Amino acid sequence: MEETFVPFQGIKNDLAGRLTCYKQDWTGGVRAGFRILAPTTYIFFASAIPVISFGEQLERNTEGALTAVQTLASTAICGIIHSIIGGQPLLILGVAEPTVLMYTFMYNFAKQRPELGHKLFLAWTGWVCVWTAALLFMLAILGACSIINRFTRVAGELFGLLIAMLFMQQAIRGLVEEFRIPERANMKSIEFIASWRFANGMFALVLSFGLLLTGLKSRKARSWRYGSGWIRSLIADYGVPLMVLVWTAVSYAPAGSVPTGIPRRLFSPNPWSPGAYENWTVIKDMLDVPILFIFGAFVPATMIAVLYYFDHSVASQLAQQKEFNLRKPPSFHYDLLLLGFLTLLCGLLGIPPSNGVIPQSPMHTKSLATLKHQLLRNRLVESARESMRTNSSLGQLYGNMQEAYHQMQTPLVHQVPSDRGLKELKPSTLQLAASMGNIDAPVDETIFDVEKEIDDLLPVEVKEQRVSNLLQSCMVGGCVAAMPFLKLIPTSVLWGYFAFMAIESLPGNQFWERILLLFTAPSRRFKVLEDYHATFVETVPFGTIATFTLFQTSYLLICFGLTWVPIAGLLFPLMIMLLVPVRQYILPKFFKGVHLQDLDAAEYEEAPAIPFNYPQEGEFGARPTNVDVGEVLDEVVTRSRGEIRRTCSSRITSSTATPTRDGKSLQSPRLSLKSPRVNELRAMHSPRSAPREPFSPSAPSSLGKSPRN
Amino acid sequence: MEETFVPFQGIKNDLAGRLTCYKQDWTGGVRAGFRILAPTTYIFFASAIPVISFGEQLERNTEGALTAVQTLASTAICGIIHSIIGGQPLLILGVAEPTVLMYTFMYNFAKQRPELGHKLFLAWTGWVCVWTAALLFMLAILGACSIINRFTRVAGELFGLLIAMLFMQQAIRGLVEEFRIPERANMKSIEFIASWRFANGMFALVLSFGLLLTGLKSRKARSWRYGSGWIRSLIADYGVPLMVLVWTAVSYAPAGSVPTGIPRRLFSPNPWSPGAYENWTVIKDMLDVPILFIFGAFVPATMIAVLYYFDHSVASQLAQQKEFNLRKPPSFHYDLLLLGFLTLLCGLLGIPPSNGVIPQSPMHTKSLATLKHQLLRNRLVESARESMRTNSSLGQLYGNMQEAYHQMQTPLVHQVPSDRGLKELKPSTLQLAASMGNIDAPVDETIFDVEKEIDDLLPVEVKEQRVSNLLQSCMVGGCVAAMPFLKLIPTSVLWGYFAFMAIESLPGNQFWERILLLFTAPSRRFKVLEDYHATFVETVPFGTIATFTLFQTSYLLICFGLTWVPIAGLLFPLMIMLLVPVRQYILPKFFKGVHLQDLDAAEYEEAPAIPFNYPQEGEFGARPTNVDVGEVLDEVVTRSRGEIRRTCSSRITSSTATPTRDGKSLQSPRLSLKSPRVNELRAMHSPRSAPREPFSPSAPSSLGKSPRN
Repeated sequence: MEETFVPFQGIKNDLAGRLTCYKQDWTGGVRAGFRILAPTTYIFFASAIPVISFGEQLERNTEGALTAVQTLASTAICGIIHSIIGGQPLLILGVAEPTVLMYTFMYNFAKQRPELGHKLFLAWTGWVCVWTAALLFMLAILGACSIINRFTRVAGELFGLLIAMLFMQQAIRGLVEEFRIPERANMKSIEFIASWRFANGMFALVLSFGLLLTGLKSRKARSWRYGSGWIRSLIADYGVPLMVLVWTAVSYAPAGSVPTGIPRRLFSPNPWSPGAYENWTVIKDMLDVPILFIFGAFVPATMIAVLYYFDHSVASQLAQQKEFNLRKPPSFHYDLLLLGFLTLLCGLLGIPPSNGVIPQSPMHTKSLATLKHQLLRNRLVESARESMRTNSSLGQLYGNMQEAYHQMQTPLVHQVPSDRGLKELKPSTLQLAASMGNIDAPVDETIFDVEKEIDDLLPVEVKEQRVSNLLQSCMVGGCVAAMPFLKLIPTSVLWGYFAFMAIESLPGNQFWERILLLFTAPSRRFKVLEDYHATFVETVPFGTIATFTLFQTSYLLICFGLTWVPIAGLLFPLMIMLLVPVRQYILPKFFKGVHLQDLDAAEYEEAPAIPFNYPQEGEFGARPTNVDVGEVLDEVVTRSRGEIRRTCSSRITSSTATPTRDGKSLQSPRLSLKSPRVNELRAMHSPRSAPREPFSPSAPSSLGKSPRN
Repeated sequence: MEETFVPFQGIKNDLAGRLTCYKQDWTGGVRAGFRILAPTTYIFFASAIPVISFGEQLERNTEGALTAVQTLASTAICGIIHSIIGGQPLLILGVAEPTVLMYTFMYNFAKQRPELGHKLFLAWTGWVCVWTAALLFMLAILGACSIINRFTRVAGELFGLLIAMLFMQQAIRGLVEEFRIPERANMKSIEFIASWRFANGMFALVLSFGLLLTGLKSRKARSWRYGSGWIRSLIADYGVPLMVLVWTAVSYAPAGSVPTGIPRRLFSPNPWSPGAYENWTVIKDMLDVPILFIFGAFVPATMIAVLYYFDHSVASQLAQQKEFNLRKPPSFHYDLLLLGFLTLLCGLLGIPPSNGVIPQSPMHTKSLATLKHQLLRNRLVESARESMRTNSSLGQLYGNMQEAYHQMQTPLVHQVPSDRGLKELKPSTLQLAASMGNIDAPVDETIFDVEKEIDDLLPVEVKEQRVSNLLQSCMVGGCVAAMPFLKLIPTSVLWGYFAFMAIESLPGNQFWERILLLFTAPSRRFKVLEDYHATFVETVPFGTIATFTLFQTSYLLICFGLTWVPIAGLLFPLMIMLLVPVRQYILPKFFKGVHLQDLDAAEYEEAPAIPFNYPQEGEFGARPTNVDVGEVLDEVVTRSRGEIRRTCSSRITSSTATPTRDGKSLQSPRLSLKSPRVNELRAMHSPRSAPREPFSPSAPSSLGKSPRN
């Protein structure tokens, strides 16, 4: 994305780009069938649970002016509109913590002004939203999102980790509160005597740790050893929602021997209680707001606009990281424009506005990567089995799989150039085939273990579509009606879920992985390379990694500290924006360019990333062969933000692997095996053509073709 | 061990065998230095905690006639005597659950007889012990232990799993009790009102699951990625005791806001309370027991004798399983004789007798295997580093390590024949060395990664000595004095520890692994092969494994059910003994001989185990190379009862690997590399000597030597 500040240019480009794939956004999603429900449910819970909890928080802070009903309604309305007419459908919208803080601050301000008070608070926030929308329109039209490229990994990941810290803080704070008497509660209730409070706290510990631990375990179900494939798959896909149900059921187990208030449960009015819809008519009151306050609303509006501009763009960016290999274009400018409209709408309806949320947006992309992997996998397994039935050679088999793979690719008109394709066959498989005597002999399961190997061939791809986003938004809307059921959930399960989300957002965050690296014993650092595919461990000296990480950690802690300062805390996005000039002008003075490039690739810097080969991938293929289906799927999620592509790009024979612009990519299947390594192997194992010079595994063979052909 | 029923013959053989290594039992232990404290502490906790808990149980059941002071004293006295003059020092003695059940039954009987009553109960048990001792003497002298060979894996592992079930049952029962009002408690105490009872139960859940989960995690610390080596080692060695301390500390955290009885803690009189030593003078009362009861004592004595004969022998057998590669002889007959003396002694002192315990005894052996591995490893790393400094070739390096290894072997006069030695170098290492051009070139860390590879070379061995057993017994004795401190431990931590012990005893139990196999998805069964080195997965059809395992499981459940029957339950050892004829005469009618041999090798059956090669270990060495130090150490513990030896025995070039009888085993280091595979590799990589016929990796190369030499 070039930096263009010509008015409307960015929006025009975005619209043009997204319109070409708009139809496919729907057809692709629908064609995925019922499997789309797995990412949908996953994101629905990740989206709804925090929104409900923020709603509760808002209810306490605004003395009931806003409740969970309003936060859910805002999330649902904005989500549905965005999923239908928004630019980037991977982006998840919702009422976020900063919005809650901002509204709390505004309520405290309004309450003290007799001209506003509780009565005109929502009308006044209406005006704030009007101004915010105006500012967002301006930013969108002027192409402010062009500078999003300057938000490098450093800034995005720091923000991601900060959000994870805030979620974890909320989880801990919530658990501590379980031991105390809640505000606004009837102090004389039996459940608030010392013994029941202690019992409630301990029960909360059991429930929240229960949810956290079982939730984390269930996400890894695909690599479990026990149970049949579909059970494991089901648990991995729906385990977390299931665990919320299970632990809610557990919370009712001692119902006979405890008072009704134990454990504490969600507290929110039903949407059909009298007065629940007062806020919907707020537009009528807006003209009652004194003119001074109408203009004064501009001050909080600027803060919210800055916050939303940053939050929305970074959430969108994190959902579209390079390593996901997205094929459809981004849409930063247009989405910001739409966010302006949505903010205006929410303001006029008297509900808090939604914006792009972290970590839900990257979680959404990750879960869709898992989905796409499953879909591709099924197709490829079918193709490989078919080839084996017809006695194809390994080369033909690979060719057929390539073809099947390319048929599964989205045929877009203005496609983002991509160098993707199936990865090369594993050296060990080629060697095995070669050692069986003849590379052209029919292949069978002993050489090419379909179940195990196909996972290795597939690149990371994402099922980009609008259906999952639309469905999850509708489900959030459904929560408003399901409020009586939601109120059965104990608050402690919520705190466990907050901790779960914080932990789930960590893998793939390279900043977090570098922090862990600092605590890793030197002899085990090679493991990091193995697990995260992080090239920087090999290319950057450890001292440099440590310094860089410590700098970033201090910066993170300052940002985190800022969130504790009552009003200034809202300005923490400014601190993160400050990282842009720091990264661009100050860091290069302390770190070598190449190292910075490896730790934090910035598009405005020159050095192209050097393709990197694993030293372990020697000619004798000492890599483990027993790669497991489920584990690979787990890894797709984990490494999805790692650097897989760079580590293997040099190996891909681009002539076959790159889908051509017009969608045709059928190539001779044989050709795809003509990599130097195959020939080396052929040479090694057919003695008549053995080279006369001493064999050196690193020098490419001088023979272009095996004499057999 | 041949079956001999000549009186005293077995005892004589045992004494002769053990006397030859008696001195080494002490010197070897002392030479291990402070490292011996790791297994000592580990076993001390595993030994003391159940004994304390059984003591509490006994105190309730005998109305204070016997307490934890007596059970601890018995365990300490018997342990010290056994560790000094016992035969097999790997065997751990302690007061076990069956003893507690037996004493409870006897107390209930005595209480109802006016001639005995509470007063003469201990005197009467004294007579029971006299008879038991007499029966044990008889069994020992007549060589009853000769038939221990008929107790195959099936019986031993079934018993092991039964004990694990009983421990787990105790853990669950204990936790449930935490929610109830304990017997004999002051019902009016504040901590027994409904709210505090519920709070206590929930707190107990937190503490026991906390101990269980952190305890299990800490045992795996060696393979953690974080922290320096010595911290990880420390946590793995002392993690469980440490966690008992940590969770005891946690239990005091809410001390300010809860009544003193929450959480419940160990309850036992101090050893210096008045009356605590009444039982020590029980010998004076023994003649007051009516003559009828003196003879009547013979009835429970036979039951106890059968129980002890079985329990003691099986505990000893499980501590000496074949896969541990023990080098010192067993001592079943003599140990049973000594047990007779110990029972007599305990009876006269009025304390319940101790016998060999499961799972502590096999846990002891496992922890000593880890110790030995560490000691061998340090020595070999030193030797390898030294060789690299002097520019040795890979062959010389391996030779030097062989030499160092043999120097570390115990020089015994009457050594048990052994085919042990360093395992072969990994194929991948040889290939790497070969691919570097010349196999005789000086080796460096890039070819032979000292830290990573040495673990693979070491066979499972056990540090057989008497020091750890003596020290742990003394520490158990010290517990009597430390009773005021022990009383700080919450009972819930105890229940967590019981669950921990049950789970810790599972890995390595092939019966358990087969049960898990039944639940394993077919596509993942290969993983079992990888993790447990269980050859039966490959050689026995799955249907047969399943039938065999289901039969064994039903048998286990019947035994478990029997323990619930009030008095007959004590006879469950008879049920397990019944397995011997079942295994010998009935099972062969339903299963093929070869399969039975693989599932449950019995010495009385003929077929020798066929050496087994991994199919994966093809010529291209597709096995993972990044084996990790800590993980290997963890595995030593886990697989120690698996079948490692059989899987690699065919690969060891026996001329160098077998230590000769007189202790000399120095061989030409070069020779050890002259395996066919090395030559194949040499041939492959020196093209001038490439064979003329098409290369086939499975046929051994016709060249005996590389032409370079």
